[in-house]
Amino acid sequence: MSLLTFDNPVFGYFAVAAALMIVKMMSQGWITVFRMMKVNGGFRYAEDARQSLTNPHPSLEQLLPDEYVERSRRMHENDVENIPLFLIAGLLYVCTAPSHAVSLGLFSVYVLSRFAHFYVVLTARSHEARAAFWTVGSVIIYVMAGVVIWHVLHS
Amino acid sequence: MSLLTFDNPVFGYFAVAAALMIVKMMSQGWITVFRMMKVNGGFRYAEDARQSLTNPHPSLEQLLPDEYVERSRRMHENDVENIPLFLIAGLLYVCTAPSHAVSLGLFSVYVLSRFAHFYVVLTARSHEARAAFWTVGSVIIYVMAGVVIWHVLHS
Amino acid sequence: MSLLTFDNPVFGYFAVAAALMIVKMMSQGWITVFRMMKVNGGFRYAEDARQSLTNPHPSLEQLLPDEYVERSRRMHENDVENIPLFLIAGLLYVCTAPSHAVSLGLFSVYVLSRFAHFYVVLTARSHEARAAFWTVGSVIIYVMAGVVIWHVLHS
Repeated sequence: MSLLTFDNPVFGYFAVAAALMIVKMMSQGWITVFRMMKVNGGFRYAEDARQSLTNPHPSLEQLLPDEYVERSRRMHENDVENIPLFLIAGLLYVCTAPSHAVSLGLFSVYVLSRFAHFYVVLTARSHEARAAFWTVGSVIIYVMAGVVIWHVLHS
Repeated sequence: MSLLTFDNPVFGYFAVAAALMIVKMMSQGWITVFRMMKVNGGFRYAEDARQSLTNPHPSLEQLLPDEYVERSRRMHENDVENIPLFLIAGLLYVCTAPSHAVSLGLFSVYVLSRFAHFYVVLTARSHEARAAFWTVGSVIIYVMAGVVIWHVLHS
Repeated sequence: MSLLTFDNPVFGYFAVAAALMIVKMMSQGWITVFRMMKVNGGFRYAEDARQSLTNPHPSLEQLLPDEYVERSRRMHENDVENIPLFLIAGLLYVCTAPSHAVSLGLFSVYVLSRFAHFYVVLTARSHEARAAFWTVGSVIIYVMAGVVIWHVLHS
């Protein structure tokens, strides 16, 4: 019997956590766009420094890296390195029929750790806080992957 | 009852769209390889500027960034930021039992928007065209994630 | 009938391969952390060069790129471009009810090719070896995507 249906509450928890993480990661792209518009620079394509409706006064300086924009790009890179792993590890973990409470806990803490990581990097808090929140998410992904392997080997 | 089977036409639509996007993103790596071979440079590993069968006349200049190659790398980065989200958001969206017509529409428009985005960046068209096609794909991912959350909260 | 359950041995094979790849990709982040600690540099956030418990003697030089660290970042980037595609292509491929032997072969060779790629890049072996192992993984992803499309069109 498939556990990947909305009749299974654990799948519902996962689907909400996954959708929130998808919205979060997609939105990082829009934050980069917002920051490029705000500083009117930090572009990476030569064609973005051409005159156009959205860029009436172009200059080559717009193609120089801008740290305010680059920070958002690095945050996006961090999402890219982490969130897709959560999305698949979580899906496979749901198939191991975990307890409702434990799975709800893992998914919730993962989502909270990523939003905390987002806040800490966005506001340039200490390296220690950034590392701590990233570690929480990382450990949850290891746990889910470990449960999947354990489940296959013991069934 | 699981909707993630090929008995479900919507899953079939999704699987074809997903496979096309997987082929597209995988192929971006080959385009980067092709471009590195064409300009005989744009390498990033010191060992790639050593003498070998495929590099009989190495030089340190081969390790300098080359914009023709970097463009393909940025396109790949854009795929990496977008396509995995489509792959999972789409899978979860299939589980909400969407109408055949709407799901076929969303999947088709997503795939077309990404191929249009690919063409526009490859040929260095206007920033406006690139932004428009990226926005279409982005909105479709938001819609699918929103439908998933809505479905869980209302069932 | 869903094939995405642990009653299906092929799903079990896939889940173990997927979990191993998730652990591999997650661990690349830790390798980058390890390398930054070892060289006490290669940081990318201004706040990482502030005085703190883990960085008692900060300097601006810590923010310069360090090739030893950058190599790990590029390995991570390569994972990001490849492993999520395997994770979804493999999941969809399982739904096509492939033979046990062929699927076990494809998943095993994929995992081995990625670990071989990891070793070859980590130890800066020849470009030819790196390209060969990457190509093996790439071809397996194309094959799985192709089987998925073929299956939908012929059923």
